[in-house]
Amino acid sequence: MEESERMRAIVITEFGDPEVLEVQDLPRPHPGPGEIRVRVRASGVNRADLSQRRGRYPAPPGWPEDIPGLEYAGVVDAVGHHVERWRPGDLVMGIVGGGGYAQYVVTDASTAVRAPRGLALEEAGAVPEVFMTAYDALFRQVGLGEGETLLVHAVGSGVGTAAAQLARASGVRVIGTSRSREKIERARDLGVDVGILASEDWPARVRERTDGRGVDVILDLVGAPYLQGNLQVLRGGGRQIVVGVPGGSRAQIDLRLLMSKRATLRGTVLRARAVEEKAALAAEFEARVVPLLEEGRLRPVLDRVFPPERARQAHEWMEENRNFGKIVLLWD
Amino acid sequence: MEESERMRAIVITEFGDPEVLEVQDLPRPHPGPGEIRVRVRASGVNRADLSQRRGRYPAPPGWPEDIPGLEYAGVVDAVGHHVERWRPGDLVMGIVGGGGYAQYVVTDASTAVRAPRGLALEEAGAVPEVFMTAYDALFRQVGLGEGETLLVHAVGSGVGTAAAQLARASGVRVIGTSRSREKIERARDLGVDVGILASEDWPARVRERTDGRGVDVILDLVGAPYLQGNLQVLRGGGRQIVVGVPGGSRAQIDLRLLMSKRATLRGTVLRARAVEEKAALAAEFEARVVPLLEEGRLRPVLDRVFPPERARQAHEWMEENRNFGKIVLLWD
Repeated sequence: MEESERMRAIVITEFGDPEVLEVQDLPRPHPGPGEIRVRVRASGVNRADLSQRRGRYPAPPGWPEDIPGLEYAGVVDAVGHHVERWRPGDLVMGIVGGGGYAQYVVTDASTAVRAPRGLALEEAGAVPEVFMTAYDALFRQVGLGEGETLLVHAVGSGVGTAAAQLARASGVRVIGTSRSREKIERARDLGVDVGILASEDWPARVRERTDGRGVDVILDLVGAPYLQGNLQVLRGGGRQIVVGVPGGSRAQIDLRLLMSKRATLRGTVLRARAVEEKAALAAEFEARVVPLLEEGRLRPVLDRVFPPERARQAHEWMEENRNFGKIVLLWD
Repeated sequence: MEESERMRAIVITEFGDPEVLEVQDLPRPHPGPGEIRVRVRASGVNRADLSQRRGRYPAPPGWPEDIPGLEYAGVVDAVGHHVERWRPGDLVMGIVGGGGYAQYVVTDASTAVRAPRGLALEEAGAVPEVFMTAYDALFRQVGLGEGETLLVHAVGSGVGTAAAQLARASGVRVIGTSRSREKIERARDLGVDVGILASEDWPARVRERTDGRGVDVILDLVGAPYLQGNLQVLRGGGRQIVVGVPGGSRAQIDLRLLMSKRATLRGTVLRARAVEEKAALAAEFEARVVPLLEEGRLRPVLDRVFPPERARQAHEWMEENRNFGKIVLLWD
């Protein structure tokens, strides 16, 4: 095989700590019918990648098993048969079921989204997973609407910062919690109306700041430790959407409280969805959210960029919760 | 006050066992603007009445505190100002926030529903709470659709028998569980496709009978003990609606499983809703469900009728889970 048909990729050599990540030289994938190949510039790092590295979140069927990475931004490099939408040279971004930590990614053409004009590709690489997750969760799954109040836990995380901005842009009041005072300050700069330290009695603070009425929607990125407080501060008819459970998965729930509040608790995940669903989300996202990124009304929150050789440090950085916003791996 | 301005009603004299119920002679209520007074023929008995009698489920503001009863069927007897829809002599039924165990009930005219033509009022008295609860829960709250599969726990209960019939009439496959073999047999006669004994490994049976795919929607009338199994048998994108928790309220939930299944868990209750919401439900119910009752495609499942003097026995009967379908108190 020629030199030009190879690529660098970050491989999980065995399950474990960040040291198991290694840059390897691998064959480039080829696009089949309906697929495109993207020369990746930026690979976003997500908390799910950490779980996959530890062996707790395997890739769904059809995706690379040992190359993590759920998103990319880059340049279309080759197109398969029956692809009308894209041509080589187009700037795109998108979510994938795995394999994002590589110089080349092959993906279904219908799931790619135009990279926002005016954003550098390294910034675009910080967009797909967190903004699509937040957009889908808040607007497609629990119908967040203008005039409502949203509570976001871990508001300084990638999805948290995206959710807060999307909600604000839709006329929603945003309350955010974080374990870090500094992240709360930075979240305020992004437009979060009320910041609450998670180590305080946050349910009491939420009630105070909503005149006792509570919130309409909760976006939860923490999990079990917050469930009880969440149900307490949810208004009648309120909805909670669970997007991540790094704080733990098993929790006590009071079903009578769920009934009396007529509350909804919903879980969501993008990775395992069928390609048709991902394509529908991509199309809606491109129509509704990409323009806001191009106008500067939303901005990717880029915490830090690492070269691929330092993927281990990138994972450590996230594992220690030191990031505010996104961590991105940058390919030459 | 004249003799004619009095009425009999069943009163909770103190919180406790069925013995605390007593028939008393009380003043008749008067309809205000927008209200009607109904001479009640049949007062349905609901599990919530048992909780109220024990002091665990107080009436919402504006409803009698010491007269239980969440539904009625009878004859309009007097109408307040601004009531266009009803005239004395009309046969009606409906849900109320309390006070249903009485010869006369005053209620907002917009929440009353025409009693199905061709049904005796004692049968109509077995309709509102269970059919409206099941209709609202399945179709308005979790969007049950043709071709889906529904799992109903406690399928022999009032709401269970109503839900099973409503689902069948909408082209839904129905799986029902019960702790009683006899109730399962009777549920089959109502059109339940698959009956499963709750004392078996019911999650395994549900999977077997759905070729491993599980169910789209679960209507839960039991609560905590079934939550874990419910999440196991729910398909991806499945929805569970919790309507009652006589089996217990506090349960363990696995939020990661909720996420990976993209499942929805929702609670609902009719009693505490605003009158506008009850009116909207009543209008939709009259348009969509009452005709099916009139055509005989749905039928109220009347377990047993008690005279008001035997309300204590009616409560005991329900507390012992001996009923299949509805228990009704019948006024002369």
